[in-house]
Amino acid sequence: MLTYNIDKNGKTPIYMQIYSFIKNDITGGIITYGEKLPSKRSLAKNLNVSVITVENAYGQLMSEGYIESKSKKGYFACKVELITKQKTHIEITEPKYIQDDKKYINLSRNSVSAEDFPFSTWSKIVRKILSEKDEELLTRQNYKGNTVLRKAIADYLRQFKAIDVSYEQIIIGGGTENLYSMSGNILGKNLLIGIENPGYHKIARIYDYNHIPYSRIEMDSKGISVEDLRKSKADIVHFSPSHHFPSGITTPIGRRTEILNWCYEKEGRYIIEDDYDSEFRFNAKPMQSLFSIDKSSRVIYMNTFSKSVSPAVRIGYMVLPETLVKKADEVFGFMSSSVSVLEQLTMAEFINGGYFERHINKMSKVYRGKRDIIVEYIKKYFHSGDFKILEKNAGLHFVLKLKTEIPDSVIKQKAEEKGVKLSFLSEYYYGKDEESLHNLLITYTGIKQEETQKAVKVLSDIFYGKYE
Amino acid sequence: MLTYNIDKNGKTPIYMQIYSFIKNDITGGIITYGEKLPSKRSLAKNLNVSVITVENAYGQLMSEGYIESKSKKGYFACKVELITKQKTHIEITEPKYIQDDKKYINLSRNSVSAEDFPFSTWSKIVRKILSEKDEELLTRQNYKGNTVLRKAIADYLRQFKAIDVSYEQIIIGGGTENLYSMSGNILGKNLLIGIENPGYHKIARIYDYNHIPYSRIEMDSKGISVEDLRKSKADIVHFSPSHHFPSGITTPIGRRTEILNWCYEKEGRYIIEDDYDSEFRFNAKPMQSLFSIDKSSRVIYMNTFSKSVSPAVRIGYMVLPETLVKKADEVFGFMSSSVSVLEQLTMAEFINGGYFERHINKMSKVYRGKRDIIVEYIKKYFHSGDFKILEKNAGLHFVLKLKTEIPDSVIKQKAEEKGVKLSFLSEYYYGKDEESLHNLLITYTGIKQEETQKAVKVLSDIFYGKYE
Repeated sequence: MLTYNIDKNGKTPIYMQIYSFIKNDITGGIITYGEKLPSKRSLAKNLNVSVITVENAYGQLMSEGYIESKSKKGYFACKVELITKQKTHIEITEPKYIQDDKKYINLSRNSVSAEDFPFSTWSKIVRKILSEKDEELLTRQNYKGNTVLRKAIADYLRQFKAIDVSYEQIIIGGGTENLYSMSGNILGKNLLIGIENPGYHKIARIYDYNHIPYSRIEMDSKGISVEDLRKSKADIVHFSPSHHFPSGITTPIGRRTEILNWCYEKEGRYIIEDDYDSEFRFNAKPMQSLFSIDKSSRVIYMNTFSKSVSPAVRIGYMVLPETLVKKADEVFGFMSSSVSVLEQLTMAEFINGGYFERHINKMSKVYRGKRDIIVEYIKKYFHSGDFKILEKNAGLHFVLKLKTEIPDSVIKQKAEEKGVKLSFLSEYYYGKDEESLHNLLITYTGIKQEETQKAVKVLSDIFYGKYE
Repeated sequence: MLTYNIDKNGKTPIYMQIYSFIKNDITGGIITYGEKLPSKRSLAKNLNVSVITVENAYGQLMSEGYIESKSKKGYFACKVELITKQKTHIEITEPKYIQDDKKYINLSRNSVSAEDFPFSTWSKIVRKILSEKDEELLTRQNYKGNTVLRKAIADYLRQFKAIDVSYEQIIIGGGTENLYSMSGNILGKNLLIGIENPGYHKIARIYDYNHIPYSRIEMDSKGISVEDLRKSKADIVHFSPSHHFPSGITTPIGRRTEILNWCYEKEGRYIIEDDYDSEFRFNAKPMQSLFSIDKSSRVIYMNTFSKSVSPAVRIGYMVLPETLVKKADEVFGFMSSSVSVLEQLTMAEFINGGYFERHINKMSKVYRGKRDIIVEYIKKYFHSGDFKILEKNAGLHFVLKLKTEIPDSVIKQKAEEKGVKLSFLSEYYYGKDEESLHNLLITYTGIKQEETQKAVKVLSDIFYGKYE
């Protein structure tokens, strides 16, 4: 007979104590497979508890499969045997690539000015949406995302970008990773995608991850080279005509039409227009997008609010040409949207209420101010013949060309030791040595006003050999 | 000389009017490639505007690449020529699969009770988080997701599921689609994954989409068949031991250890434990997860808040065994999280503040009530010999076995005509005919109390031939 030491005044209910004792005896091999357990009545008597208590314990053991009841025969232990394995201890850590950033003044990454996020407006909108308790908030959305937001984006595109589309053509995604992988899957994974060289490392890595083949296309002063595009045999070209990172190039209209014409020459050719920071232009009005110039449904347009609102807002979108809408349904129709509905509705109201436009205008001024300050310090700390600022009309960074013999890697390392993160254009080239040009990227959007002077001073001290 | 009709009192700035006229002439072929434009001074005189105005117009045209300036020679039109293509009109529509649902009383889908979403608590938390303006809110998160939420989940798992893990092992994803694809990529796309037959159609489709090979494994009354698993040559098994959809089976401890032992037999074998609705159990305490029984780092545990809080909250998570943490970093290290940071922080506080536990307790009662009501109506509208309720301990649906000769498809269609959506267990089998069993799924969580009677009445009327 099973005899256990029951604690009748303990916190754990008595039936759970009995359950645990028997369970441990079974897993420990004290009660073996097939062994008959005492009847409820006799165990209750033996442990001096009620029959109901034993019944509850047996019930739990049965529901978990430790014991089974055979009709008119009683309760029997089941086979529960785990091969013992030694667990080896493995050191686990967090990926470092983001955490470390906070310690540095970062001139190398196109980040967003954190302090200017419209907290109170955002909060007001969220509150309003939650108080309305719309059923929308509780409904799984189809893979394309929330209709209210998609309509808001369609209106915005019509008004501000002269892109005239129906909301049915718009798909919401959580960040560009998501969108690149989706567009790759809509177009078909067997097609070769041409990407920019130099370019964002991430694009290539996302295509790698999705097993989508790509080829790097050389850029000249007007953007992606059509000649090289032809040579590559690419079927699709993925590029940023309005503001290329890191070169800063804006592709002029002539090159845009050339690329569109390349596309029209053959069925199945498409363009992915990555318009990620076209909202901010200081000197001129935004250029016509390829999507709106295109007359033949060959352009997928992409943009994100991570850049224009906050990197914490994980909402991007793509606009499909009409011809691809049905294809997208076939590929993704069974999925639901992975983007927070509340955030989608908040973003929709942020656009519809005019807050987005105001935010863009405000941030343009803020960024313009940051740019002017850093240019001023560069002029102050560098002799006029020692540098050149290469700056195009659009976007939020410029290139500082340094007249120096110091290798890029040395400047970079010394700056990092002094708490300033830098990157050179040369790092974004694949298979090409551009180090001798000493083109330093200056992305000023994320740095705080009070850090600007320090950053430029450090750079100039390295440049003029103060740390030798 | 270019002569245009300028509207000096119009809304559009004069320089933009000039810009548009010249642009249209270039794209329309009136000004041809290489043609020289009038000097700024002479055009200004001709149009009776200031030189500055023409300069602004030319500046915009240059920045977009319509014209170029050659030093000391003047301005020339660039090559801008687009092959004309006829745009064919294509009808585009929205995917129907979700929109339609609202018209029906839906007994076929495991949806969530919308009316019980804790709007005011959620709103309070969002407000608090936004008012604190934490920098966290504005920072791009690494691919694993927000640390505060991951710590909250680790605490929750320890307290409520006896799963003892470090937050470094936890990855946040937006919905299960996301997580299935991630786990597939961590384990390697060349491994064969065994999935349940019957099972959720979506799992197979997501693996299809990700080009991950899978094989369907037969289930018996205890869950996935180890014999069939062996036969399949699968390397990985993806299953739901705590509550299988649609069968409702809870895998007993003996079978769990058998599957773990299968896993230990060979290097590289893994288990994906899909625990999607284990939070709700009416009759017994939750069973020990495979993850916590495992002694050899072979189980990936997955769960989602879409089920326990709201389908609009797009947050799921997976817990990696220690051995896979580094591998995940290698695969995903370059990506950032695609899940809304605000929503992650809100969910974290929802857990940490004890709201999640309270919500689960409340919803268990709500769902229990819904279950009892529908069972009551079934007993009222069906004669006692005509049906059997097959119900296991866990989860949020049961199977209603009908004694009938009417084919499942006929019952389904007639019910749909009367506004009730049904599904039979037979629909979830692949390559197996189970129609003769007439096992009807009853998922009662999403239907409103006042709809219950109508739904059961419709079903009974079909059953007893009232619509003949």
